[in-house]
Amino acid sequence: MCRHLLDIRTMNSDSIGELLDLAADYKSRIQSKKPMPEVPRRVVGLLFFEGSTRTRVSFEQAARYLGYQVSNFSSTGSSMSKGETLKDTILTLKNERLDALVMRHRSSGSTHLAAKFFGGPVINAGDGQHEHPTQALGDALTILERKGKIAGLKIAIVGDIMHSRVARSNAWLLSQLGAEIRFIGPRVLMPGDMSLLPGTVFHDLEAGIAGADVVMCLRLQKERMLDGMISSVKEYTRLYQVNRSVLRHASPNCLLMHPGPVNRGIEIDDATADSENSAINNQVENGIYVRMAALHWVFETPSASKKASKTAKVKK
Amino acid sequence: MCRHLLDIRTMNSDSIGELLDLAADYKSRIQSKKPMPEVPRRVVGLLFFEGSTRTRVSFEQAARYLGYQVSNFSSTGSSMSKGETLKDTILTLKNERLDALVMRHRSSGSTHLAAKFFGGPVINAGDGQHEHPTQALGDALTILERKGKIAGLKIAIVGDIMHSRVARSNAWLLSQLGAEIRFIGPRVLMPGDMSLLPGTVFHDLEAGIAGADVVMCLRLQKERMLDGMISSVKEYTRLYQVNRSVLRHASPNCLLMHPGPVNRGIEIDDATADSENSAINNQVENGIYVRMAALHWVFETPSASKKASKTAKVKK
Amino acid sequence: MCRHLLDIRTMNSDSIGELLDLAADYKSRIQSKKPMPEVPRRVVGLLFFEGSTRTRVSFEQAARYLGYQVSNFSSTGSSMSKGETLKDTILTLKNERLDALVMRHRSSGSTHLAAKFFGGPVINAGDGQHEHPTQALGDALTILERKGKIAGLKIAIVGDIMHSRVARSNAWLLSQLGAEIRFIGPRVLMPGDMSLLPGTVFHDLEAGIAGADVVMCLRLQKERMLDGMISSVKEYTRLYQVNRSVLRHASPNCLLMHPGPVNRGIEIDDATADSENSAINNQVENGIYVRMAALHWVFETPSASKKASKTAKVKK
Repeated sequence: MCRHLLDIRTMNSDSIGELLDLAADYKSRIQSKKPMPEVPRRVVGLLFFEGSTRTRVSFEQAARYLGYQVSNFSSTGSSMSKGETLKDTILTLKNERLDALVMRHRSSGSTHLAAKFFGGPVINAGDGQHEHPTQALGDALTILERKGKIAGLKIAIVGDIMHSRVARSNAWLLSQLGAEIRFIGPRVLMPGDMSLLPGTVFHDLEAGIAGADVVMCLRLQKERMLDGMISSVKEYTRLYQVNRSVLRHASPNCLLMHPGPVNRGIEIDDATADSENSAINNQVENGIYVRMAALHWVFETPSASKKASKTAKVKK
Repeated sequence: MCRHLLDIRTMNSDSIGELLDLAADYKSRIQSKKPMPEVPRRVVGLLFFEGSTRTRVSFEQAARYLGYQVSNFSSTGSSMSKGETLKDTILTLKNERLDALVMRHRSSGSTHLAAKFFGGPVINAGDGQHEHPTQALGDALTILERKGKIAGLKIAIVGDIMHSRVARSNAWLLSQLGAEIRFIGPRVLMPGDMSLLPGTVFHDLEAGIAGADVVMCLRLQKERMLDGMISSVKEYTRLYQVNRSVLRHASPNCLLMHPGPVNRGIEIDDATADSENSAINNQVENGIYVRMAALHWVFETPSASKKASKTAKVKK
Repeated sequence: MCRHLLDIRTMNSDSIGELLDLAADYKSRIQSKKPMPEVPRRVVGLLFFEGSTRTRVSFEQAARYLGYQVSNFSSTGSSMSKGETLKDTILTLKNERLDALVMRHRSSGSTHLAAKFFGGPVINAGDGQHEHPTQALGDALTILERKGKIAGLKIAIVGDIMHSRVARSNAWLLSQLGAEIRFIGPRVLMPGDMSLLPGTVFHDLEAGIAGADVVMCLRLQKERMLDGMISSVKEYTRLYQVNRSVLRHASPNCLLMHPGPVNRGIEIDDATADSENSAINNQVENGIYVRMAALHWVFETPSASKKASKTAKVKK
């Protein structure tokens, strides 16, 4: 029996709090250059079927800070391109004696399939339009640091909600910890049944952003949009770009977030991305610490970690 | 003067036995979590001009278990794509002070060329339609574990013999250790002169498989088949798929093997691939141990290793 | 405040001498198998937006000999292909807590941009048609070893000067250390304003090579030539190939160099590339030592390194 980190939706706030506490501990340890505890020899496979710089490197850094080795895979040049099923690829990696798998894949739910067959811990590094749990954990850590709390905050998520696993994981996590979630975007970029997501839908940016403590921009994933929508990038920018003018409607010192990579001049303007209220750089750095926490957490046996739980700090 | 592992055909049974003994020792050491002996600092270059997941990762794991570092190369983005000759690429890697080279290349015999110029040990990880020696060593270790012996076994190799380096290396190795080899497949997928390979040819699956102790399926390498043959995948499946119905003609508890990646529903059906008699997962795992043995063996001076030889276990 | 290694043109001969001394020290240390001094934990990012085997591996080897870890990136599968600006990619890598960046990019000057935003040391591994400083340092070390000095030597650089960052970095470095530089090639492959480069231009190979102590061939970068020029490869070869016949005009024991990858039979013939006077293999090996020196040098604080300076050896 082993632990996986596949989605936020099925996690309780104790587990989320435990992960955030672990991440904060690792951050303070690394920033004060304290030595890391000794760990057993382990190899973490980084299986990225979709391109990534920031997430892969972040997991690499996390694994290395902890003292683990990494093996990189990508879809190019792999046996998947020779017609192997995902199940067989996962079984192969199991028998190659990898100790954990960090996986990104274009299909929603594919990491659940991997967890079923791999035998060891699997961490979801983004699966289709489903979830991207470590992104949401890093974002939550960033909000905690910059705002001191999550409960009671008004958090607006702006953009292509339909295709965004970042939006989903963040909505589940932040609502679980007591924030009020607003989804803002055009009808055509909202999922069919919004009642399945925890929050309120706005189609008008100014209305949705009113009084927001945090505004989370999403990348306009041009490569995922249907052909008919691409002609509307200019229109999208006019209606939904987060910029100084729009932010006057938000709360003063509203925190500005973006999971990256940023399309400057489309979903966000330069001044906003580079302002003092922007937490984009913190999000990247905190990604390392939550991924250290994630690796720690999945390698721990559930019973052992229960005892170590100390979620009070986060749920204040 | 240094050792290479380029093909099975030119190896004697003492060397093969030595490698299998080393692999079995490493397996027991790793499974019982015994520490590995200290080794000098060495960097193993993994030079894969053809795509691979399982073989590359297997060598990576092998090198790391032994305490060596790895450097990965692929054909993409390399100087080969800028028109450099293979000889010059190999000389460059020599002067980059890599200590050993593991190489996969589409051209038969290319690893011999590499061995000529590299200066240090070269291990063939698959060269064209020539050989794939570490695959055959892992398969032999698997048969030894599951059947207790190799000598006297009836071993059927089914499929695209013509394009298969796996078939060639296995045929040389297993016949050298006393097995009876049968090649099964359509005329069009047999090499021109079968008298050069050690075994008997069958074009009828049931006849060839009769009484077999081991059935080794080959992947139908669709990408290597001539255009005119691709239309016959359905016909191939009907005539040469290894499945439950056909296996009634084999020996009871006939061991089922496949080098992967598997085309499920073509050369093998799901029930057979996933049955208790399938050794596919063992083949993958044993690949690590024989590659540890291969690295150990090529780094050892021939004189020193002669003394350590203890091939009795395998040749029983 | 941190040090970068971005171009040779702005370096003084003290810094160049310091780097060459460090490289020579590392070479003797490695060749005599002396242990390396302990270093703090550091991760060096290898950010190659253009393909490379030799330079990337050389930096990998350098970093590993020094005891550092490396993280590899390439343009494929990176966030740059999703429309991220270079500035944002660099900021991301900064926040991923990489300790230094080795960068190759198709745009001249891009490494200066990276140095502006990265926060830690940046080493230019080749930027467009601008510079490739570590290549020139390795070439200088090679000339020093083989000729005993640089000052006073006649050094001919033959080929596509216009597109060559290797030619530029070498010309700046070798002229700085007192060599006489000659640029040889067709008018169409010379930069528009040759007065910006330190040397004399020749369009006739025999005239330019007369009495040369060192001949440095450049790769004919077919992929960078304008369409109209590709038809002239045969003509180029006839007029500018460095071969035995032409080398009779050079000084006896003229050293032959090439940054690789070599187009055999185009800019150089086999006999010359493989002759005793060829230093091509030394250039590759020395690349490791100068890259160790470069990493050492950028990680050192300028004040501390001033004290350790001992440039006398090189400037003899």
